[in-house]
Amino acid sequence: MTRQQLIDQITKKGSYLCVGLDTDIEKLPAHLKGQPDAVLTFNKAIIDATKDHCVSYKINTAFYESQGLKGWEIMAETLAYIPDTHFTIADAKRGDIGNTSAQYAKTFFEVLPFDAVTVAPYMGEDSVRPFLEYKDKWTIVLGLTSNAGSFNFQRLPLEHKNGKQLYEQVLQTTCEWGTPENLMFVVGATRASDLEYIRSIIPDHFLLVPGVGAQGGSLEEVSKYGLNKDAGLLVNASRAVIFASSGEDYAAAAKKMAQEYQTEMSIYLS
Amino acid sequence: MTRQQLIDQITKKGSYLCVGLDTDIEKLPAHLKGQPDAVLTFNKAIIDATKDHCVSYKINTAFYESQGLKGWEIMAETLAYIPDTHFTIADAKRGDIGNTSAQYAKTFFEVLPFDAVTVAPYMGEDSVRPFLEYKDKWTIVLGLTSNAGSFNFQRLPLEHKNGKQLYEQVLQTTCEWGTPENLMFVVGATRASDLEYIRSIIPDHFLLVPGVGAQGGSLEEVSKYGLNKDAGLLVNASRAVIFASSGEDYAAAAKKMAQEYQTEMSIYLS
Repeated sequence: MTRQQLIDQITKKGSYLCVGLDTDIEKLPAHLKGQPDAVLTFNKAIIDATKDHCVSYKINTAFYESQGLKGWEIMAETLAYIPDTHFTIADAKRGDIGNTSAQYAKTFFEVLPFDAVTVAPYMGEDSVRPFLEYKDKWTIVLGLTSNAGSFNFQRLPLEHKNGKQLYEQVLQTTCEWGTPENLMFVVGATRASDLEYIRSIIPDHFLLVPGVGAQGGSLEEVSKYGLNKDAGLLVNASRAVIFASSGEDYAAAAKKMAQEYQTEMSIYLS
Repeated sequence: MTRQQLIDQITKKGSYLCVGLDTDIEKLPAHLKGQPDAVLTFNKAIIDATKDHCVSYKINTAFYESQGLKGWEIMAETLAYIPDTHFTIADAKRGDIGNTSAQYAKTFFEVLPFDAVTVAPYMGEDSVRPFLEYKDKWTIVLGLTSNAGSFNFQRLPLEHKNGKQLYEQVLQTTCEWGTPENLMFVVGATRASDLEYIRSIIPDHFLLVPGVGAQGGSLEEVSKYGLNKDAGLLVNASRAVIFASSGEDYAAAAKKMAQEYQTEMSIYLS
């Protein structure tokens, strides 16, 4: 999917919501547990219920890998079920030396035809480049994450850089390898004020913002500081949407939550 | 596998060689290409040929994931074929927020019963902890890698730390989360002199050293600076061993290479 196609979808829907399919088998509604294909049934119902209110789905690969072969099968079937109009993200946080990253890129852009994959920056340029070489595909590099551990390394100030922190250098250096047409960044929502600063460093790139909802981020603040002239945001909600109810009404409850996000987002967009 | 069991294997064999099963389907010997189960046939022959000369096998998950479901099946079958005496590593470079890392730990310690998994440190403590919680399993955290991109971020000097570089901080901070009984580090071999310095920071931990062979590192230098009283090294060779020959004699050629490493290692150990 191109940047313009993504922007068009956001404009059309009045939504920059990404629904995270972190489908934890332990958290499925009781009536589905133990059924064959419970995860796939759940995912399809969630997609049917939310697709009019979001522009993107993010599949957290860890929850599928941990189910073994069956999990990879369900990941492929879930991806195939997502409408072409929606921007699909493999949240896989891969990254290795060049010849190995090329294999990961093949996995998530060819074998499983996602639009985007998340990538960890620690190993540097040759670990990111193979992903960027695919036309009309997107590389979403970890910038500043929303978890407690982001303070261990991402926020360390660098020498001779006027107090610049590691994550800022990651944003700036990585920008040299790609363009706003094929590169996004993960920026957590737990400190929305950081977003204002990040927007001053990277005004044009799309940001994938997790941490709204279950992790406590505020959609209003994220939107205030994160939106740019092209929207430039994909705000992800996972548990807050897909596990909004643990009863038989889980799909309706997910729809209601997604719709609430959409209604709020349409205000911030206008 | 416990630390003592690993040390015993190294002592018994006079080898700290880890054979990397980066089985690139494009590089298989011509007579195997196109055969059903070519990768599995190849891996089994390599394991049979090298098992007396190495103490560990490292499966680079990227090369299996890129083959889709079939690849995951072959990864499982390869792992099952490796003798219990050998230390098995999933070179997967995973890492995410806590609930997601817990799923990855389940994948590589339970669903696929590896002894160890490689983990990327960028997201900090809660991304590493879930792996460390497994008894008699190992977490191998990226410290200083051997690729060109290691200069982008890993070697950046930090402020107010007397010139300490990011990777040094990663080694020191991560050491607080685990022990030499459940934590190792990836340290690349391309600049062996770095190893001397790294040994002064972490004298006790095992180091997994890639980059010997195809990537140009010297086994002599790595051993000189990296060995400690318990050996403390696993030196990985992938392409240099498994693709030593592209002909029908590939297994014999791999055995010869592994045996050469073992012979040299036994000298450094004594």
